[in-house]
Amino acid sequence: MRRARVFAPATIGNVGPGFDVLGLAIDGLGDTVEVRLDVKENEVIVTGRDALLVPKSMTKNAAAIAARAYLAKKGYKGGVRIYVLKGLPMSGGLGGSAASSVGGALAAAIALDEPYTDDDVLLAALRGEAAVAGTHFDNLAPCLYGGLTCVLPAIGKGAPRVCRIGVHRDWWVALVSPSHQLETRRARAVLPKQMKTQQWVEQMARTTALAYAFAAGDVSLARHALVDRFAETARAKLIPSFAKVKKAAEKAGAIGASISGAGPSVFALCEDMMTASKAARAMQDAFGKVESTAHVGRIDKLGARKVQH
Amino acid sequence: MRRARVFAPATIGNVGPGFDVLGLAIDGLGDTVEVRLDVKENEVIVTGRDALLVPKSMTKNAAAIAARAYLAKKGYKGGVRIYVLKGLPMSGGLGGSAASSVGGALAAAIALDEPYTDDDVLLAALRGEAAVAGTHFDNLAPCLYGGLTCVLPAIGKGAPRVCRIGVHRDWWVALVSPSHQLETRRARAVLPKQMKTQQWVEQMARTTALAYAFAAGDVSLARHALVDRFAETARAKLIPSFAKVKKAAEKAGAIGASISGAGPSVFALCEDMMTASKAARAMQDAFGKVESTAHVGRIDKLGARKVQH
Repeated sequence: MRRARVFAPATIGNVGPGFDVLGLAIDGLGDTVEVRLDVKENEVIVTGRDALLVPKSMTKNAAAIAARAYLAKKGYKGGVRIYVLKGLPMSGGLGGSAASSVGGALAAAIALDEPYTDDDVLLAALRGEAAVAGTHFDNLAPCLYGGLTCVLPAIGKGAPRVCRIGVHRDWWVALVSPSHQLETRRARAVLPKQMKTQQWVEQMARTTALAYAFAAGDVSLARHALVDRFAETARAKLIPSFAKVKKAAEKAGAIGASISGAGPSVFALCEDMMTASKAARAMQDAFGKVESTAHVGRIDKLGARKVQH
Repeated sequence: MRRARVFAPATIGNVGPGFDVLGLAIDGLGDTVEVRLDVKENEVIVTGRDALLVPKSMTKNAAAIAARAYLAKKGYKGGVRIYVLKGLPMSGGLGGSAASSVGGALAAAIALDEPYTDDDVLLAALRGEAAVAGTHFDNLAPCLYGGLTCVLPAIGKGAPRVCRIGVHRDWWVALVSPSHQLETRRARAVLPKQMKTQQWVEQMARTTALAYAFAAGDVSLARHALVDRFAETARAKLIPSFAKVKKAAEKAGAIGASISGAGPSVFALCEDMMTASKAARAMQDAFGKVESTAHVGRIDKLGARKVQH
């Protein structure tokens, strides 16, 4: 029986100003997906965080859809058994469906034991993600490649192009997820339909500078650039105590803080582990009576990878 | 008599997708400004390209306004004589007024023979630029600092912050200026008032990736990212044969080509001198009966600097 197990990290979509463009992978938190081939019956088994909420049918589970999309493309016709150990919350804004999808596609590719390309894995993962959460390359790309990524629109009919931004420093991130879910659909609905040219120009400048700040390891520039006037402004009201939580992170010494993806998780980018730990604690305190979980981790520079059985 | 002479390079505003954000300085073409202090009478003398069209009064000449803004701030009360040798065309889209302004401010600062900061020079230059052409930090910043710059909006009431993008490779640029002028005001008027969110997101992705491509020296990425769907789309019709000229540059092997600033000059980014020379020639041919001048130069990494008398 051929099989492979893959760990796929949590990802922060947008990373502040980079709406639908930037994405950042976080170490130590993610979904683990195992794919077994050459079995008689198809099966999906899901355990871990919010497991009860995750669809378990072959046609609705993101990891399964992605794995089977990959396998179908390569001509595999046997049965598939898929184990998903969820580390990421459902509708948390941490790229949970992207992680399951990338995990499923990559585990399938490795299990097949044939040469594979990142592009093929990414496209199969996209099928899983698209079926459950819409197409978020800003989560899929950093989940697969690690680090900070920038997703470029395709030229012509091809797939989007992913630009991997070299990350210079070993920055840390504090992630705090309040207990309530926030559906991506609802978080999308509150976005403004239009924004003035001048505001987009400024958003564009911040996104460009933020990406460069990661590449150059420039804390002061990142501090200036990690400001989002598009999604954060609109979504802040969907997250209880958001303003307080953000302020708490900044006061704790974070480079900057904003909503992770569509929320409700909030991230704080920090220079080191100590600051990230302080920020995580301060953010949880600021959520007050709203229960939350926190994770502190460095930027994941590897992306989805094979792990031991 | 204290005096100083400064060369201030040509600059490409926008650099394709980076509307009002990115700017790039080009070597070997620019304005030269000399400031003389401790003279009895104020005077502006302008020679060189389009000299007849350049205002010569102390209150209307960009170099003079900038120089005097700097000097006034530092408490200098004597007379000022200013010589401007224009290398840049009037209303050509090559940052001519920015070069005169930066040249005037920096020459004044050096002539005073007291310590000065780039910020002070930039703010004085802004006064000159604002008086004649509106405030284009995307020309002023690369002209002063050299290389590729990204202008970030101020936080609060301060001045915009300039992010200098380290340029990895020794890329070359072909600049072709058709003989007709295109007033910035007219070029601004044709810009769309609004653009869809999705289009801005894509523009933002390209700008971010393009800046990173310069930093990383990634030709393939720059090729993918040097695409402007905002200003170029609207302004192409103001430049005769633009589509042909752009295609000619691409066919000659350029990484990409677009309108320089508000136009009508067209630039082509190239990997080396040979390609830039070929592109310049092909672009001039493509302009057909429209007369044009061409310049081929590398990226100017120094920015405005003192030169010999």
